[in-house]
Amino acid sequence: MPSYTAPVRETRYIFDHLLGLERYSNLPGFENATPDMVEAILGEGAKFAEQVLQPLNAVGDEHGCIRHEDGSVTTPPGFKDAYDRFREAGWGTLSAPEEFGGQGLPHVLSTAITEYLVSANQAFEMYHGLTQGVIASLLIKGSDEQKATYLPKMVSGEWSGTMNLTEPHCGTDLGLLRTKAEEQPDGSYRISGTKIFISSGEHDLTENIIHLVLAKRVGAPDNVKGISLFIVPKFLVEEDGSLGPRNGVVCGSIEEKMGIHGNSTCLLNYDGATGWLVGEPEKGLAAMFIMMNAARLGVGLQGLAQGEVARQNAVQYAKDRRQGRSLTGAKEPEEKADPIIVHPDIRRMLMEGKAYNEAARALILWGSLQVDLARKAQTEEERVAADDLISLLTPVIKGYLTDKGYEVATNSQQVYGGHGYIREWGMEQFVRDARINMIYEGANGIQALDLVGRKLALNGGRAVQAYFKLLAEEVAEAKASEGSAAIAAALEKAVADLQSATMWLMQNGMANPDNAGAASYSYMNLMGLVTLGLMWLRMAKASTAALAAGAEDADFHQAKLVTGRFYAERILPQAGAERRKIEAGAESLMALPAEAF
Amino acid sequence: MPSYTAPVRETRYIFDHLLGLERYSNLPGFENATPDMVEAILGEGAKFAEQVLQPLNAVGDEHGCIRHEDGSVTTPPGFKDAYDRFREAGWGTLSAPEEFGGQGLPHVLSTAITEYLVSANQAFEMYHGLTQGVIASLLIKGSDEQKATYLPKMVSGEWSGTMNLTEPHCGTDLGLLRTKAEEQPDGSYRISGTKIFISSGEHDLTENIIHLVLAKRVGAPDNVKGISLFIVPKFLVEEDGSLGPRNGVVCGSIEEKMGIHGNSTCLLNYDGATGWLVGEPEKGLAAMFIMMNAARLGVGLQGLAQGEVARQNAVQYAKDRRQGRSLTGAKEPEEKADPIIVHPDIRRMLMEGKAYNEAARALILWGSLQVDLARKAQTEEERVAADDLISLLTPVIKGYLTDKGYEVATNSQQVYGGHGYIREWGMEQFVRDARINMIYEGANGIQALDLVGRKLALNGGRAVQAYFKLLAEEVAEAKASEGSAAIAAALEKAVADLQSATMWLMQNGMANPDNAGAASYSYMNLMGLVTLGLMWLRMAKASTAALAAGAEDADFHQAKLVTGRFYAERILPQAGAERRKIEAGAESLMALPAEAF
Repeated sequence: MPSYTAPVRETRYIFDHLLGLERYSNLPGFENATPDMVEAILGEGAKFAEQVLQPLNAVGDEHGCIRHEDGSVTTPPGFKDAYDRFREAGWGTLSAPEEFGGQGLPHVLSTAITEYLVSANQAFEMYHGLTQGVIASLLIKGSDEQKATYLPKMVSGEWSGTMNLTEPHCGTDLGLLRTKAEEQPDGSYRISGTKIFISSGEHDLTENIIHLVLAKRVGAPDNVKGISLFIVPKFLVEEDGSLGPRNGVVCGSIEEKMGIHGNSTCLLNYDGATGWLVGEPEKGLAAMFIMMNAARLGVGLQGLAQGEVARQNAVQYAKDRRQGRSLTGAKEPEEKADPIIVHPDIRRMLMEGKAYNEAARALILWGSLQVDLARKAQTEEERVAADDLISLLTPVIKGYLTDKGYEVATNSQQVYGGHGYIREWGMEQFVRDARINMIYEGANGIQALDLVGRKLALNGGRAVQAYFKLLAEEVAEAKASEGSAAIAAALEKAVADLQSATMWLMQNGMANPDNAGAASYSYMNLMGLVTLGLMWLRMAKASTAALAAGAEDADFHQAKLVTGRFYAERILPQAGAERRKIEAGAESLMALPAEAF
Repeated sequence: MPSYTAPVRETRYIFDHLLGLERYSNLPGFENATPDMVEAILGEGAKFAEQVLQPLNAVGDEHGCIRHEDGSVTTPPGFKDAYDRFREAGWGTLSAPEEFGGQGLPHVLSTAITEYLVSANQAFEMYHGLTQGVIASLLIKGSDEQKATYLPKMVSGEWSGTMNLTEPHCGTDLGLLRTKAEEQPDGSYRISGTKIFISSGEHDLTENIIHLVLAKRVGAPDNVKGISLFIVPKFLVEEDGSLGPRNGVVCGSIEEKMGIHGNSTCLLNYDGATGWLVGEPEKGLAAMFIMMNAARLGVGLQGLAQGEVARQNAVQYAKDRRQGRSLTGAKEPEEKADPIIVHPDIRRMLMEGKAYNEAARALILWGSLQVDLARKAQTEEERVAADDLISLLTPVIKGYLTDKGYEVATNSQQVYGGHGYIREWGMEQFVRDARINMIYEGANGIQALDLVGRKLALNGGRAVQAYFKLLAEEVAEAKASEGSAAIAAALEKAVADLQSATMWLMQNGMANPDNAGAASYSYMNLMGLVTLGLMWLRMAKASTAALAAGAEDADFHQAKLVTGRFYAERILPQAGAERRKIEAGAESLMALPAEAF
């Protein structure tokens, strides 16, 4: 059976050495995040993930969710009890605003904890994760009354939330959706239609479920400009906050999936369900994008989290399993064989996992800090800069990190040889669970298009220009320092590839938009390679400084320097290949008629 | 539900335009493979795969195999009936020698059919596939009596076969194995031990199962030099060929796996089972390698076959599913959206699948022809050259093509968006089934080591030198021809990368074997890239010639030229990145102590 240990030491390293969280102690919420407080929260979160959630991961996979004839859904054995403990411990309240019962702590801190929860049990964490997305949308777009009615109970975890976009005939192209909203004399709406792939859509963990639903008002344009967002609770809420009648939304079926069996993925039938408009009519997509952007960062985190738990187990197996001898002579001659971690090709898989995961964690926490700063930084300039940066990097975090999470999970399974294919070892579950992260919240190809087609050009390219400036400055500074000069030189080359590709896109993407579409995936990969390279640059700098200052845990910092070198030598060279694919253009991709495939 | 159409046209193209099978009609077996005969066999094989096996693929996945208390195993509903039809149609007899009831046809022809069978139902095909491996071993290493006793019924499909290598504590490192063989006064052996991961190890399809088992004779060295090969039938065979008493080998359990549920993967307990030595004592590994090399080519074929069926379904879905509009303006403005095949990033996935699969098929059939030529070519020189080539390329075919098969299956699943994750669409089964091909018959890392550590240096590098010569000649010739000059130039660059990497290995792998180990996977990738590039070079040449000759199916040949260009522009650039990873050396890979992971 697989195990999991939350990487608290790694999180602390990023907080202390990369982000310098103490520098932000003048900002709202950060003042409470004292080192002691952070230490305590990370430790308790780790314990909860390791001891309560991880043991239920295989249980959830094995049992799945069961839908009963009345449309009710039972979650796997142990999930309800674990959820009650989750709620009682207040794990859902960390970064929620204090006025709605939250603790008001920085988002970056709750992100760190969420990694642990997902590594331990992604299917479970999604019940809470979707709720956070609904909270984020209502905080910005909800009316005061809606906030007062729904937020306190969602923050506390008594109620949960879902997002309802997809219909059987449309997912990416939401302009096609058919769910209708008919206005009633009292200002409410009657919602009718069918939504599919609704994660956490129906279950027995909370007493109420608050659905956010995209629908078209009667008479609205039948395209993407006619979409509004509605709030549709499973149970209507009375004036006094108590639960009223059951609303007309029912789970019609739950999907049999490749993985995340512990989460109930529902088809929901809305049959004249009562709902209320959230925000302005026909502005539903913009409102939903608030939720979706938060969710995309969360999915990038899921990519890391699956890769991390898989990697940890592969490391343990590689130390325990003995097969063959080191190519340079027996390392443990008293045993019949050496542990397989002596073999370079086993190490290749483990080092790649280490190099991707540690940089991914740095990127996600840096990105989460930008989310905090975009809301809370003291000057408008800082807030805009932070928002620009996280907007630009969101598709990279979602797309690149979930691809890598799947790759790391697959390689970690490979370390097990035949045992990796057998259920009881648990590795194949990580691969199956990791696979969804590349698909939902906008398939990774959509992320790539969002990056190339939207984020690059936004505000005249302001965000990407600022990012190039940041890269150039950090590379220049690092080149001057012995500990980081080598990785800076490698990164400089990759940045040049990224700049060349960006220039190519500007010149060729306007003339023929297919050139942009054809380049998009490689461009996302290239920006992912560079951005994780930037994280390794920072870690090299930080650990060099720590060693120079006589850090006690010298081994830890030495390992960072080695892993950074590995990234520069054996992963960054991919950048050149991505650039050449981009600059090949769309011709050979688009030349075949459909029937020739 | 997914569908499958055997790519008979593609097979014919390779037979006729790339391999020129008619040139070999003077060789034994080939004389019967007239164009009409080949056409008929491919057509019938296609029908059997499409109509009988494919409908059972999801059934096998859903039901799996069931082990009963007495150790007997029931295969999924429909498998027994399909197997009877398979046997009656003689699909297992195609390339088996006529003296044992086979049809004596070329191996390359049975390989083509096997692709169809595996695409339709890999779990089913493996019952027959393992049998072919046992036949191959006995043909070379078996005594005349063993051949007479076992081969006719295995060729006919009345009996099936298995290979027994792995034990709970050892897979790759067979020197550690513990299964014992104690010689009896009558010359037979009593075999005792536990074998795991035995594909098709116990089932209800055949009346007898012939196990080939690696074990150590009492008193033999307790290492890789002490291994012998034994034949252990499930039922002992009487003098007259009828079945005698049940032998002491019992299925102790069947594994719960990630995929290929329709095949029974068994733990087999040998408890004093009666067995007979195959070949010489303590030469078991060499004997098993005959089977293993054949099996490795077969697994490479499985990689292609899974990628192909997944790709076909993704193409269909991309034509049917409508979401969004083409970036260059609506292609079907009368509909509410365009089919997603208009989107460049969807095409990227489909084109990669097409480019990999068509070249993989050409490589596998070219490789299978070498297997025929190694046995049957008229001169010793030709036989040695063919054997050198297929020995060199076997790890590439197994390792690179199964990685790509998984990648193509994963990308094909991705084309479906959320539906790809749902069981009923069938795409996720292809991914789960494809995953095993990277693991069994020597995990792909072992293939890479076999290539770099063994195949490159064999006979003073004779095989790789001959291969470089062949590449240089074909590139030079193609550069002179308009239709193939561009791809020849791109391939020349990749060949230069391969040569540079080979040189680097020669200079650095001896001094420090870890450099060879660290380079091995990228080297396998690089040789895979170049070798599929060679296939595209040949296809470009062949289709240019066909078009110049006024071929009727001009669209087919035009598509080959486009796909070859795509391969050159958007896949071959990977070669440079692989070279740089190789030349980075082992230092950063090996630097960390085990506890630092």
